[in-house]
Amino acid sequence: MRIFICGFGTVGQGFAEVVADKTSYFKKRYGRDAIIVGAMDSKSYVVDQNGLDPIGLVATKKDSKRVGANTYTDSTAVLDMVDYDILVEVSPTDVNTGGVGLINIKHALSKGKDVITVNKGPLALKFRELMDLAKTNGCLLRFEGSVGGAMPIINLCTESLAGGEIKSVRGILNGTCNFILSKMDNGQPFEQALKEAQQMGYAETDPTNDIEGYDTACKVVILANSVFGRDVSFKDVDITGITSITEDAISMAASRNMVIRLIGEVSATKLEVSPRLVPKGHPLGISGTLNTAQILSDIAGPITVSGRGAGRLETASAILSDLIAVMDKRLL
Amino acid sequence: MRIFICGFGTVGQGFAEVVADKTSYFKKRYGRDAIIVGAMDSKSYVVDQNGLDPIGLVATKKDSKRVGANTYTDSTAVLDMVDYDILVEVSPTDVNTGGVGLINIKHALSKGKDVITVNKGPLALKFRELMDLAKTNGCLLRFEGSVGGAMPIINLCTESLAGGEIKSVRGILNGTCNFILSKMDNGQPFEQALKEAQQMGYAETDPTNDIEGYDTACKVVILANSVFGRDVSFKDVDITGITSITEDAISMAASRNMVIRLIGEVSATKLEVSPRLVPKGHPLGISGTLNTAQILSDIAGPITVSGRGAGRLETASAILSDLIAVMDKRLL
Repeated sequence: MRIFICGFGTVGQGFAEVVADKTSYFKKRYGRDAIIVGAMDSKSYVVDQNGLDPIGLVATKKDSKRVGANTYTDSTAVLDMVDYDILVEVSPTDVNTGGVGLINIKHALSKGKDVITVNKGPLALKFRELMDLAKTNGCLLRFEGSVGGAMPIINLCTESLAGGEIKSVRGILNGTCNFILSKMDNGQPFEQALKEAQQMGYAETDPTNDIEGYDTACKVVILANSVFGRDVSFKDVDITGITSITEDAISMAASRNMVIRLIGEVSATKLEVSPRLVPKGHPLGISGTLNTAQILSDIAGPITVSGRGAGRLETASAILSDLIAVMDKRLL
Repeated sequence: MRIFICGFGTVGQGFAEVVADKTSYFKKRYGRDAIIVGAMDSKSYVVDQNGLDPIGLVATKKDSKRVGANTYTDSTAVLDMVDYDILVEVSPTDVNTGGVGLINIKHALSKGKDVITVNKGPLALKFRELMDLAKTNGCLLRFEGSVGGAMPIINLCTESLAGGEIKSVRGILNGTCNFILSKMDNGQPFEQALKEAQQMGYAETDPTNDIEGYDTACKVVILANSVFGRDVSFKDVDITGITSITEDAISMAASRNMVIRLIGEVSATKLEVSPRLVPKGHPLGISGTLNTAQILSDIAGPITVSGRGAGRLETASAILSDLIAVMDKRLL
């Protein structure tokens, strides 16, 4: 199977490393390799029909800040330069327009290529259109890593819990907010906790996307569309972030043996992101950067899952599980 | 798809109810029904090539204590009376010999039928032989419900976390023991907690299988063979049950902010069931009858999952997810 990687930041590089690391796994499972025939970042690209060295790509990016020597203006023209089977779209997300990720995904699907992405913008804005495009062209579109990082959630609901009707999913889906709220539990004011999150590399310089709840909202939309079969987008979510949570609110919660957590909730009728009071010791009361979700199924009852919501290899692991599902479907 | 159900106790009846409940789901997903063409309990059977009414079967069993009017001596002869595609083997387990469940599973696989089971005995005793038999005959053998009930664990490790190397699984895999230990946390002596578990229907009249750790050991063996690719059986497990846990031990743990939990652990080299000290608040320190497991993957990091480990519909939900996986493979 020939893979084209669009986006070569942390996640793209992590995925390239995983592909290199799992060579013998692919050989054993499929009797053949998964090779990378193209890679692209925001300005440069490299393609080779015979396969690129994944570790070499990571080294090149590290040394030169670009994945390839060639410069491009039209990403879809680069995609057309080689034959590939699967697009792994992990370019920086744009939750307002879908950005280049949306363009790349549509282009690949329209050419009959399977797509794996963790790019939330395109999924939160154009889910139904993308799924329809995939169906029309006989393609698979998978996106496990777009919600919860390494924490299994989408495929868990649609495959491991297949047949059960999922009544609701409630979760902590943004590790940055949870880190900040956990620090506030220990008495830090919001601004200081945010600063620490930035120093630790959990929050970006502009933390708006995380702390205003937009990132969680994207994930809630993806869950609503994929698990609940709804047809909603970012603008349909009722969003409250964590910026107005005061030290007083935290202390008042603590005095009632509760904590405040930013919870995303989705059901057949609900689509909400808001800070909520959660009893200490409750699965949704966890501290730190983990993601966690409570899934309520009509027949399985409540299922709780947690795992690392972000990280180089962790997100790559979700992409890998999707890649294997695609390869199973195409090769076994 | 035509299903034969062997075993018509709580789980078999729950599964029949789920099949009835999910008729429209099957129609929508596959454009056809899943029908039950045969059902058998320990002494009686009923078969109908055109399909049996699942709710009628449950009613008959309730009224007459038998699923069918016909009596049999050889279960495999009954299996041969109708054409079926999938055997759902949920007869009472026998961890010493594999019992009639082992005979039924082998018979079905040797005839080229797919098999779904939650029957731990056959899996804990003859895993490799059964998997080889399935492979030779081009059959699927799935058993999600044999470990953790509704809690996704086997397919979670092998599918949702596919590609990652699972380093270890540690879990609370027996709700009865956890109920007893949770009651002991509140000051009840062992005998009293056990009695309450029996009154609540969590523990059987002869609780040996649960409290001596044998049930957990079977599950550890199934995980070792299916997730870790090992070839072990029940006798290879290092087992300590909970019968010798004193109130003193519980208090001493509590004074260190710990609880005692019966943990099953499996890795490439480990195969152990033993009571262990777990910090309060740790995912493996949960109270009550839930099952929970911590999975450590090389690239996904630690994943924790919990859910109901037993119950009529809960176990049926695991069988349903396996049924859908089989039908996906055969029909889509």
